[in-house]
Amino acid sequence: MLERFKPKPEDATRVSVESLREVVSAIFEKMGVSGEDANEAADVLTMTDLRGVETHGVSNMLRAYVDQYNSGQVNPRPNWQIERETPGTAVINADRGLGIILGRRAMDIAIEKAKTVGVGIVTMNNGGHLGAVGHFSMHAAKNDMVGMCATAAGTGVLPTFAAEPRFGTNPISIAAPGNVEPPLLFDAATSQIAGNKFSLAKRVGSDLLPGWIADGEGTPIMEETPVPEEGWYGNLLPLGGTRENGSHKGYGFMLMVEVLGAFLSGSVPGMFDTEYFESGYKHYFAAYNIEAFTDVDEFKAKMDRMLQMLRETKPAVGQERVLYPGLAESEDEKDRRANGVPLHKEVMEWFDSMVGELGVPALKTM
Amino acid sequence: MLERFKPKPEDATRVSVESLREVVSAIFEKMGVSGEDANEAADVLTMTDLRGVETHGVSNMLRAYVDQYNSGQVNPRPNWQIERETPGTAVINADRGLGIILGRRAMDIAIEKAKTVGVGIVTMNNGGHLGAVGHFSMHAAKNDMVGMCATAAGTGVLPTFAAEPRFGTNPISIAAPGNVEPPLLFDAATSQIAGNKFSLAKRVGSDLLPGWIADGEGTPIMEETPVPEEGWYGNLLPLGGTRENGSHKGYGFMLMVEVLGAFLSGSVPGMFDTEYFESGYKHYFAAYNIEAFTDVDEFKAKMDRMLQMLRETKPAVGQERVLYPGLAESEDEKDRRANGVPLHKEVMEWFDSMVGELGVPALKTM
Repeated sequence: MLERFKPKPEDATRVSVESLREVVSAIFEKMGVSGEDANEAADVLTMTDLRGVETHGVSNMLRAYVDQYNSGQVNPRPNWQIERETPGTAVINADRGLGIILGRRAMDIAIEKAKTVGVGIVTMNNGGHLGAVGHFSMHAAKNDMVGMCATAAGTGVLPTFAAEPRFGTNPISIAAPGNVEPPLLFDAATSQIAGNKFSLAKRVGSDLLPGWIADGEGTPIMEETPVPEEGWYGNLLPLGGTRENGSHKGYGFMLMVEVLGAFLSGSVPGMFDTEYFESGYKHYFAAYNIEAFTDVDEFKAKMDRMLQMLRETKPAVGQERVLYPGLAESEDEKDRRANGVPLHKEVMEWFDSMVGELGVPALKTM
Repeated sequence: MLERFKPKPEDATRVSVESLREVVSAIFEKMGVSGEDANEAADVLTMTDLRGVETHGVSNMLRAYVDQYNSGQVNPRPNWQIERETPGTAVINADRGLGIILGRRAMDIAIEKAKTVGVGIVTMNNGGHLGAVGHFSMHAAKNDMVGMCATAAGTGVLPTFAAEPRFGTNPISIAAPGNVEPPLLFDAATSQIAGNKFSLAKRVGSDLLPGWIADGEGTPIMEETPVPEEGWYGNLLPLGGTRENGSHKGYGFMLMVEVLGAFLSGSVPGMFDTEYFESGYKHYFAAYNIEAFTDVDEFKAKMDRMLQMLRETKPAVGQERVLYPGLAESEDEKDRRANGVPLHKEVMEWFDSMVGELGVPALKTM
């Protein structure tokens, strides 16, 4: 994550991981979620914060989930069901259950299928927010699989040359295991930046960079610009930013996620919705059983070698080092397990208010 | 494709599709390829030119293939074999056969598996160049499947912040069918531009745009710059161009293709090669049987509706219209079937030289 999105150290309080997990789980239970599901949600969210993905951890998402339970937009006791199934595929109707709770179960089904027929694809319609899609890809990687996960929802991003939004930020992820190196974990919105980066930028007082959003007429804004009070969702540009810089490719990747998530789950793309997020979130989970393709030990040894080569690649002039996707996340996790998860003061205030409002325990600072 | 890559009309001669296919097939036979395989190669290459993808059609690739057959880098009579197989997956050793000839057969195997278990994944190691990866995704789409295809090879592209190249241009594609609209067909290099764009830019005399390549020390060149005489391969930037503009996402997509193509075919990434293209081209083919996921007719009707919505989206100020991936290609195909395929005068000269050198028929102009 760019430095501009990170909370300034003086604005952040470090809280213990155990305390965070406990309080988050208690909040979910207060929303009517079962104990088992509340623990699952807390695991996913705290793991996301441990990896340094503040956009999708407790700071940014938990409040939204509480609002969604309160408004009835998500279902705390979903009766999710498999609607269609073959040996290698399954389509799940999530009954408006939150994706962060149902995602691992969907990936588990994909993994079981991959053990039998080499690959498993599970799609999910009528779902709630999935959080960081990389989390579920990682779940497959921990089971000696290559995992992929993507989610399609909403209409906030402009196609290339367009003045009207047609896509969600449609993130996609892949994870693959090594033995020694921290695993490869790539997870990115196919728009220039994730939607949650706007609230993060606003909270830490950062401007947006050139080519991230367009003006009201669809023209990319090519200078630094403050976060608009409203209207940024709908003016987001696809990865690339401008046509000359490859936004037609970002546009294509947005469509790829729409096909895998919305179309292959039997749902509709967000652009068909007449009401805000009417068709819900549509998810895609893929597990490739490494053993079906090659020797698992060889795969992991080669993965280690590649990841090591990448982080030892000679950096460009003025750059400190070359990262690979998943490396900084793994370093953040080590730091945060030892020293606690940094939460912005605004987020701490919200947790404090929940103590009174819901009667959940207070967070323990480090 | 950007206008800057297209040959000027006064430099182009239109040749008939039938004649082009016939001459290309004859050239492949002269290389020692069987009649059936030569026809397959000619079909793939002329179809690519019909779709307007000059980078990967006869203009740019045929000469390279002829050189590769002559030097023994590719095998005209490959004894390709399935090395590992499950109901949903297969790994093929291509025995250095050209990907454009073996690609459809690999996708056919994926399609057959998808008919049985819902999804089919076929990877191919030890291969030759695959041409336009979208061609094979389209083959799946014509069989009521969602098709994906990708290929990993070489080391010409810099990871974000790096001064040494680690990846090929690693293109990826997806295709999905509608009923009425031209099909969705997305096919893009995960680098800023495809490698073949350099020879195209040089031929038509265009400069490179800011953020497409880096200098010798890994710093992105942020102004227009002439095509370097040499050294562009190795200084290509990932999709996004700069870190601020999302090049870490392009980098992630390059890695995604490396995992799907090189790792899942049991091969190695190009960065391990000690000799130029030693590990060959590594390919990935995926077929998703739409029927396994949802009703085929509904899928196609929704696809038509989405594609229509996209091309009828209000354009940004100053833009003529909004395209979707596959639309311009379909329009080019219609035009070229009727009026012939435009070939640059340099390409025509090469074909003329082949008449004498190989004794193949001359091209018929329109």
